Amino acid sequence: MDKQQFGVIGIGVMGKNLALNVESRGMSVSVYDRDATTTDELLIEAKEKNIVGTYSIKEFVNSLQIPRKILIMIKAGKPIDDAIEELIPYISKGDILIDGGNSFFMDTIRRSKKLEELGFKFIGTGVSGGEEGALKGPAIMPGGQIDACKIVEPIFTAIAAKVDGQSCCSYIGENGAGHYVKMVHNGIEYADMQLICEAYALLKGVAGLSNEQLHDVFKEWNKGELDSYLIEITSEIFAKKDDETGKHMVDIILDSAGQKGTGKWTSQSALDLGVPIPTITEAVFARCISALKDERLMASSILKGPDTLFEGNINEFIEAVRRALYASKICSYAQGFALMKAAAVEYNWDLKYEEIAKIFRGGCIIRAQFLNRISIAYENDANIKNLMLDSYFKDILNNYQKDLRYVISTAVNLGVPIPGISSALMYYDSYRSANLPANLLQAQRDYFGAHTFERRDKEGIFHHEW
Amino acid sequence: MDKQQFGVIGIGVMGKNLALNVESRGMSVSVYDRDATTTDELLIEAKEKNIVGTYSIKEFVNSLQIPRKILIMIKAGKPIDDAIEELIPYISKGDILIDGGNSFFMDTIRRSKKLEELGFKFIGTGVSGGEEGALKGPAIMPGGQIDACKIVEPIFTAIAAKVDGQSCCSYIGENGAGHYVKMVHNGIEYADMQLICEAYALLKGVAGLSNEQLHDVFKEWNKGELDSYLIEITSEIFAKKDDETGKHMVDIILDSAGQKGTGKWTSQSALDLGVPIPTITEAVFARCISALKDERLMASSILKGPDTLFEGNINEFIEAVRRALYASKICSYAQGFALMKAAAVEYNWDLKYEEIAKIFRGGCIIRAQFLNRISIAYENDANIKNLMLDSYFKDILNNYQKDLRYVISTAVNLGVPIPGISSALMYYDSYRSANLPANLLQAQRDYFGAHTFERRDKEGIFHHEW
Repeated sequence: MDKQQFGVIGIGVMGKNLALNVESRGMSVSVYDRDATTTDELLIEAKEKNIVGTYSIKEFVNSLQIPRKILIMIKAGKPIDDAIEELIPYISKGDILIDGGNSFFMDTIRRSKKLEELGFKFIGTGVSGGEEGALKGPAIMPGGQIDACKIVEPIFTAIAAKVDGQSCCSYIGENGAGHYVKMVHNGIEYADMQLICEAYALLKGVAGLSNEQLHDVFKEWNKGELDSYLIEITSEIFAKKDDETGKHMVDIILDSAGQKGTGKWTSQSALDLGVPIPTITEAVFARCISALKDERLMASSILKGPDTLFEGNINEFIEAVRRALYASKICSYAQGFALMKAAAVEYNWDLKYEEIAKIFRGGCIIRAQFLNRISIAYENDANIKNLMLDSYFKDILNNYQKDLRYVISTAVNLGVPIPGISSALMYYDSYRSANLPANLLQAQRDYFGAHTFERRDKEGIFHHEW
Repeated sequence: MDKQQFGVIGIGVMGKNLALNVESRGMSVSVYDRDATTTDELLIEAKEKNIVGTYSIKEFVNSLQIPRKILIMIKAGKPIDDAIEELIPYISKGDILIDGGNSFFMDTIRRSKKLEELGFKFIGTGVSGGEEGALKGPAIMPGGQIDACKIVEPIFTAIAAKVDGQSCCSYIGENGAGHYVKMVHNGIEYADMQLICEAYALLKGVAGLSNEQLHDVFKEWNKGELDSYLIEITSEIFAKKDDETGKHMVDIILDSAGQKGTGKWTSQSALDLGVPIPTITEAVFARCISALKDERLMASSILKGPDTLFEGNINEFIEAVRRALYASKICSYAQGFALMKAAAVEYNWDLKYEEIAKIFRGGCIIRAQFLNRISIAYENDANIKNLMLDSYFKDILNNYQKDLRYVISTAVNLGVPIPGISSALMYYDSYRSANLPANLLQAQRDYFGAHTFERRDKEGIFHHEW
């Protein structure tokens, strides 16, 4: 039997769809799953296709051409380590293991080092786009040894999403770089979703729009600056009805959100690196508060809000929310890209932000027209300190900051919580402050703990005897 | 030679002052420091006192009564592990090692387990109050085996701060509980300081108060609900002048703040446990933004703010800021205590919040009248879900929420960044919302990733074919 060109371990939804995607580009694929029936089911579904099922790790490894290219698509954490341990006795030097899950980047750094010492190649790659992306074209963010990435590049490029003829796949950097960038992508996605939810809360709670009107507003917004996958599906969601009750789906769904690892990891990494990403972090916390449904129900009858009514012009308010949403989105991406910049220094990665923005344009949940602007910003100045300083983004922010202020003060006075949007303005106003009140904070720290301070008028480290 | 009753390893400022404190309560003390000259200097300074200097670990250990009580006061992290390794060959079963630094609680859990297996006792204790507290009376938060804590209790109780005749020291819980509570204490301290700084920014930037007026306002505030150590020293700071230039110290100090581990650890732990603590986290991020002084200077000429002037009544505004500060402080402590509650479940600690609030009343940087109110809240209902729901705190919040809204909308419209205060209101408004827009978020997640959702009208987990 001829050896297969590509192997996939773990054929759950993502693994199966990636296997089908690779096969559809004219490559032969071997698959292995711990659960033999899963393999059997795929073989029945794909019986006309060039996919071989295997029933042991040994059989799987032996079915592959050398150097083997093995994509591991299983749960992040210990299962990945276990799968690697199982593979090691059978693979050959130069073989390439690829972890395509949402692994924690420090785990990827560790695994990369270990496998490299044993003579194997290891790629940790972000794969974004959910089920459908995996099948039809995801965004792919590979990190690892550059020679190994070169070997799999033709495959990744073939299966990735395409935008303007470019494949949404570029080499990110050494060891954990790909998983890091995917993690930040997910953190940005948390913020994007939260900001949209807050716009919804404002349009519904303040402007009093119906689901039909919300459908129309988001559809309209999707034609302009906000053009993106998430705005598009938001518009569609408002049109969907429940078959059973005939009610709008959005009104039937409980307002209690889950969260998995990558959002919180993004915030935790930012805290480690000392990079402020308040909007992404508020998005994570907003999910946590939403999950406290019972407590909120109880608190709603105990803690008071204002009884003010909105007295402004509805259409002006809707447009102000649109602008506030776009401005907040810029602040949130500025935070995410600033974080990547700090991580590149800390972990010694040569990240190409222009390329990263391009990858995000297709396949990804956060795909949006707007990403072209980010790409151009880095094309104009690869070392720009913060995206908000780019000529396009600063113009938008300077024009829309008054809308942010209008929307936030309205929400504050009406009691509508918009932690993401307001954190975005606070980030903007803090970042553009030549002076912040941290001089008092340093005085306090020196007062009670002799932590010392710098002076404005001369160099050095000082302590005052208070 | 008689054996000594208590031993201290590491006699930097904190270790030395704790040794002197213990000795001052009538106990004999042995000290050891890797740097022999540090030991010699202490012996000269304390030559009339019952303090013995030792120059090797062996000599140090042999100088102590059994069971030995050894306080380790060195840098957190690997140095603690190294010191423990050095001690193990010389100590006896039943001896008690005490880590009094700001160790990460997971390290304390690990060390506790290891030492217990070897037959030794281990206490990880929070010690709060800075240099002066260490000498005259810190707050002490011991965690570890209860029998070991009982043995050192008389010493800790003797050296701790006293409030209303009660010692600011109580047993916190097993293994890492003491260090966890101290970590959250520090997170709360970050928020307290940031909120005061924002009040300063408002009083200076919006109300236009001079340093003399700020001194007076904070002095006045310290007589009411805000009565606390941090408000007291803030008032004093505004009165202090630089000997060299004659200018106010606060104006000479650079607005660029440092941060050490405990603030960020608090936020990272909250993210792990899924507990929203946005105000504490904004305080950490505010320090990070303050440190970007050069970027801020550059951005200040590129990113625009409003050119609106304040047109309200100055005295009314000052009082509104006071109320907003107090309300924000309540929200921030509610977050910190909710975090401890979640940690108690996760790590299986039986935390006594009433006692913890009492400990915080003395010695600590965050000591304040207000902590009595927290203690009473838990006395009234040990299982209260959130401090904001307590009868005293809810009344304050219900009365002061309008001031929060007034202050925040003013700051937003004038371009003054107050991320801590605004996150506190967002927390309040989110927590009291029977409905949040997370239903849309769950719809989005189900749309692009089949993440499923719950329904409002029936139990179960659902997926919609969008």
